[in-house]
Amino acid sequence: MSARTSKAVFLKSYPNGLPTADDFEIREIDAPSPGPGEMLCRTVWMSVDPYMRGRMRPDVKSYIPPFSLDAPLEGGAVSEVIESNIPDFAPGDYVVDFAGGWKEYYVTKGERTQKAMPNLAPLPAWLGVLGMPGMTAWAGVTQIMDPKEGETLFVSGAAGAVGSVVCQLGKLRGARVVASAGSAEKIRWLTEEAGVDVALNYKDYKNAAELTRALSEAAPKGVDCYFENVGGMHLEAALNCIAPGARIALCGMISMYNNTEPEPGPPNLVNLIGRGVMARGFIVSEYADKAMEFASEVAPLVAAGKIKFQQTEYDGLDEAPGAFIGLFHGDNAGKAVIRVGPDKT
Amino acid sequence: MSARTSKAVFLKSYPNGLPTADDFEIREIDAPSPGPGEMLCRTVWMSVDPYMRGRMRPDVKSYIPPFSLDAPLEGGAVSEVIESNIPDFAPGDYVVDFAGGWKEYYVTKGERTQKAMPNLAPLPAWLGVLGMPGMTAWAGVTQIMDPKEGETLFVSGAAGAVGSVVCQLGKLRGARVVASAGSAEKIRWLTEEAGVDVALNYKDYKNAAELTRALSEAAPKGVDCYFENVGGMHLEAALNCIAPGARIALCGMISMYNNTEPEPGPPNLVNLIGRGVMARGFIVSEYADKAMEFASEVAPLVAAGKIKFQQTEYDGLDEAPGAFIGLFHGDNAGKAVIRVGPDKT
Repeated sequence: MSARTSKAVFLKSYPNGLPTADDFEIREIDAPSPGPGEMLCRTVWMSVDPYMRGRMRPDVKSYIPPFSLDAPLEGGAVSEVIESNIPDFAPGDYVVDFAGGWKEYYVTKGERTQKAMPNLAPLPAWLGVLGMPGMTAWAGVTQIMDPKEGETLFVSGAAGAVGSVVCQLGKLRGARVVASAGSAEKIRWLTEEAGVDVALNYKDYKNAAELTRALSEAAPKGVDCYFENVGGMHLEAALNCIAPGARIALCGMISMYNNTEPEPGPPNLVNLIGRGVMARGFIVSEYADKAMEFASEVAPLVAAGKIKFQQTEYDGLDEAPGAFIGLFHGDNAGKAVIRVGPDKT
Repeated sequence: MSARTSKAVFLKSYPNGLPTADDFEIREIDAPSPGPGEMLCRTVWMSVDPYMRGRMRPDVKSYIPPFSLDAPLEGGAVSEVIESNIPDFAPGDYVVDFAGGWKEYYVTKGERTQKAMPNLAPLPAWLGVLGMPGMTAWAGVTQIMDPKEGETLFVSGAAGAVGSVVCQLGKLRGARVVASAGSAEKIRWLTEEAGVDVALNYKDYKNAAELTRALSEAAPKGVDCYFENVGGMHLEAALNCIAPGARIALCGMISMYNNTEPEPGPPNLVNLIGRGVMARGFIVSEYADKAMEFASEVAPLVAAGKIKFQQTEYDGLDEAPGAFIGLFHGDNAGKAVIRVGPDKT
C-alpha cells in the first residue's frame, strides 16, 4: 500500500460546446503501486492538446475511445521513473507517455513508452517539437504533402505546436510558405522567427471570400500543399486557391471541435475533382513505425536551431483546465505545457 | 472549298441551373476541309457526358476551358475518317476523338485521336465501357481505391457509364459492392446483370440520415472504398460509414452541377481525419499514359461478357440537347450515345 497521494484532473461532465472549468475537477487520490512488469512514474510536464476535445464526446465513434466521466483524464506526459519492474527502464530515467499525464503519478507497463533525452532538448520539447505534435507535422510534410522546391505550402493554425513545425519543414524543403494565425504576436513570430514568406492574421478576414482574396494574393501560383488544422473558412479558402495536383494533409479542424450543431462543410469540394487533388486525413499513430526517421531528421535541426519552437508554460495541475480551454481561444503560442512537478534536469 | 454541309449543336446561352432546350441550337454550317497534317472525320456516334455541364459555366476556372457561346459544342465521338493528310490514318478508319462530336463533320490533327476497333466491340462501346467512362472507372479502381478481396466498395451513380464499370471491376477484385442508383430498373440491372451485392434506390431515402442507415446495414463492416459520382447526401452518408484506412475516388458530383447557389458540403469531413481516409479527386486525362494498361485489362473482359454494359441510344443530332438534359434527371441507363450518321460496321 502506498502512502503517496496523487493529484489528478477528473472529467466531471462532457462539455456542451466550449469546455468550461466546471467540466473538470482536481481530486487527490492514492498514487498507484507498480505490479510485476510495471513502473511508477512521476509526471514532470504534461501536454494539453486539441485532440482531447474529441474524447469528450461520448457519442462519437473515433480512433480512440471517449474519456469516462468521474475518472482521471489521460494525456501526454514527460515523467521521471520512480520505481521500475521493467528491465528497460530504471529509476531516474525520463520517459514520454501518451496516456500518463493529467495526474501526478501513474503506473504503466511501458509498452508505448519512449525515452526522453534531456541532453538533446529540454524535457517539455519531448511533448512538442520532438514529441507527438512534431511527429504529426513531420508525417504530414514527408508522408502526405511532400512539398517540392518552389511550390507553395499553406498552413492554417500555423503558430501552434504542429503548424509551426510544418512551416519550418516546408521552408527547409524550399517551399514558399503562407501561414495563417490569429494574433499580431503570432504573425510576428512566424515571419521573424519561423521565416515564413507571408503570414495572414485570419481575424482580419470576415469570411471565406475575404480570406480567399488574401490567400490568392499571397499564393499567386496557387496552393500546392495545404496543411489543415482549422477547418471552416480556412478549408474553403484553401480549396478556392488549390492548384492542380495539390496535396492536402488533414490534421485537425479545431474551429469545429466545440460545435453543438453540425456545421456544413465547404461548398467547393468539387474543386478537388477538377484540379486532381489528393486529401489525406491522418492521425500520427499511423506513422508510429517512422518514429526513428522523424527523430533522426528533426532532432538535429532542433539542436542546430534550424527549427525553432515556442511553448506556453502553465504551473501546476490546477491550471490544466484553463490551459485546455485556452486552446480554443488561441491563447497559447506554440505548445501548451503544464509543469506538474519539479524538473530536475 | 467544300460543298458538304455539317449540322452542329451550338451553345446559345449558358444555362442558369438545369439546362433547357433553349440553351442549344442546331445549325447547319459548311463542313471544314482538312489542311496539311489534318484529316476530315464523319461523326458516327457521339457522346453525352455530365462533365460537359462544367464547361457551360464561363466564370469557373477548371481543367478545361468553358465552351464559347455561339460556337459548336465539343464532345466525344466515334467517327469514320473521310479524307486524311495524316500518315497514321486512312479513309475508312474508325477513330475516337475527345472533342470531335456535337457536329456531323470535323477536322482534326489527330494528336489525341485513338483508333476504334469495330471487330473488338461495337462502335458506341468506344465512347463508353472501352472509352473515356470505362477508363475513368478503371483509373478510380486501380490507381486510387485499389479494393482488396473482402473489402466493401460503395458506388454512387452506379448504373451510369462510369459507375457500372466500377461495380464490376470491384466484384472481379473480390470486393463486396454496394451500389446506389435512382430507379427500380437500374436496381434490377445492377443486381441481376452487374452482380452487385446490394443495390440501394436512393430515391427511397429522404436525407443523409436515412441513406446512412441503409448504407450501414448494407455495409456492416464499413465502407473501405467509395467511388463518388453524385455528391450531396451520398458523400455525407459515405463519410458516416467510412472505415479506417478507406480510399475515396472523387470522380463527379452530378447532384451539384446545376446549382445556382453554392451548396454546403457535408458536415462530417472531420471523419476523414479520425479514420485516416484518403480522398483523391481526379480526371481521367491524368492517367492518359495508362490507356494501354486499361485496354489490355478491360477489353478482354468486355469481349468475354465479364463486364456488361448498357447504353441508351438517341437518333440524330437533334436529340442531343434532350439527351444531355436527361443526364440530370437520371433518364439514361448506362452510357448515353447519339447516332449522328450511318454506322456501317
